[in-house]
Amino acid sequence: MKRIKVIGFDADDTLWENEIYFRESEKKFFELLKEFAPAKEIEKKLYNIETINIPLFGYGVKSFTLSMIETALQISKNKVKADVINQIMEIGREQLEKPVVLLPFVRGVLERLSGNYKLVVVTKGDLLDQELKLQQSGLKPFFHHVEIVSHKTETEYTKVIKHLDIRPNQFMMVGNSIKSDILPVLRSGAKAVYIPHESVWIHEIADAPVGNPKFRQIHSILDLLRFA
Amino acid sequence: MKRIKVIGFDADDTLWENEIYFRESEKKFFELLKEFAPAKEIEKKLYNIETINIPLFGYGVKSFTLSMIETALQISKNKVKADVINQIMEIGREQLEKPVVLLPFVRGVLERLSGNYKLVVVTKGDLLDQELKLQQSGLKPFFHHVEIVSHKTETEYTKVIKHLDIRPNQFMMVGNSIKSDILPVLRSGAKAVYIPHESVWIHEIADAPVGNPKFRQIHSILDLLRFA
Repeated sequence: MKRIKVIGFDADDTLWENEIYFRESEKKFFELLKEFAPAKEIEKKLYNIETINIPLFGYGVKSFTLSMIETALQISKNKVKADVINQIMEIGREQLEKPVVLLPFVRGVLERLSGNYKLVVVTKGDLLDQELKLQQSGLKPFFHHVEIVSHKTETEYTKVIKHLDIRPNQFMMVGNSIKSDILPVLRSGAKAVYIPHESVWIHEIADAPVGNPKFRQIHSILDLLRFA
Repeated sequence: MKRIKVIGFDADDTLWENEIYFRESEKKFFELLKEFAPAKEIEKKLYNIETINIPLFGYGVKSFTLSMIETALQISKNKVKADVINQIMEIGREQLEKPVVLLPFVRGVLERLSGNYKLVVVTKGDLLDQELKLQQSGLKPFFHHVEIVSHKTETEYTKVIKHLDIRPNQFMMVGNSIKSDILPVLRSGAKAVYIPHESVWIHEIADAPVGNPKFRQIHSILDLLRFA
């Protein structure tokens, strides 16, 4: 790991809990609409609507809230009451206001690594949202800056690496999504470390590139200290 | 202008039309709710709700759509029909899908300037949204990259300047908002050029710092070529 100069971290579900809050919100949402359809059916509808909306709306809680509202209208055939829409808005707002809960060992590991590497956050989330979380979490001092990308593609990682003024083999990305944090990073010529999180968004599921020498899978962020 | 190395451009209403589409959407929105209240009253309510929501929701069309929905619920005392909510969602979606309309002379001026300066976009909008517009507009080749900031404050501009690896007096910002593109830039020690746009968001109104030697007001982006 002598060659590595910059370590990029995914934020949601790599540094702090995130996906579980979507699951919690969905549960409340399914409950709100139970007179119209069973949870499984609403879940499927919501998933389809999110898939359609992502290219236009992007990621994050605001998009999710708009997709929940759209799902409620469709599933109820426009019969849903204004009061329920209000409660859906409230679900979104509550989720945005959730305190940041760090994953185990994150603070200590970042503190150690920040002495030897430049650390950056690489996220496709909403910048405002991610900056707020970084501030609230107390992790901000460990990071040089936040690299915000519109999509986590090979092209975008190549831009980030160029922007950091390093060569691809001097960059290592750490994240919990094979599709977003691992595969495009490896294609850009950099290294990638996968830390699975029990809660994975269905849009992000893909196979691990086992056998690629630039890829590692670890159990916890703590394991980073074994080789970084 | 020999010292200037990087010129930062605000995007919405500096490079392309934006605010007029919010005005158009608002008109449709007021019309949709006319059975509940006169346009003036809805406008005031929407403004208040936006002001409350910005710290949590941020800027852009998604936030605006959520604020319109919240306004509809409040103004109708939760009596608004699902079908109207659906139409509000449609207003938001239509606005997101609007083609990018460049302001006069933008393309030619950027083409000229990009030969002599590094050009960047500095925006507090939604990155996905701004990247899409940059791509659609055909202006992407003229810009080195997009600097996305959570807020347009002195601190954020100072970060951008540091990030660009230049001194404050080597940076010049061009924009249509005194509050966001001019005042914080001048405080950071850089130069700022104000190009008023007839359509200004009410949240962005502030007095021009007339007399500040680092400040200039011009009529059109074309006037940049007189001194840059």
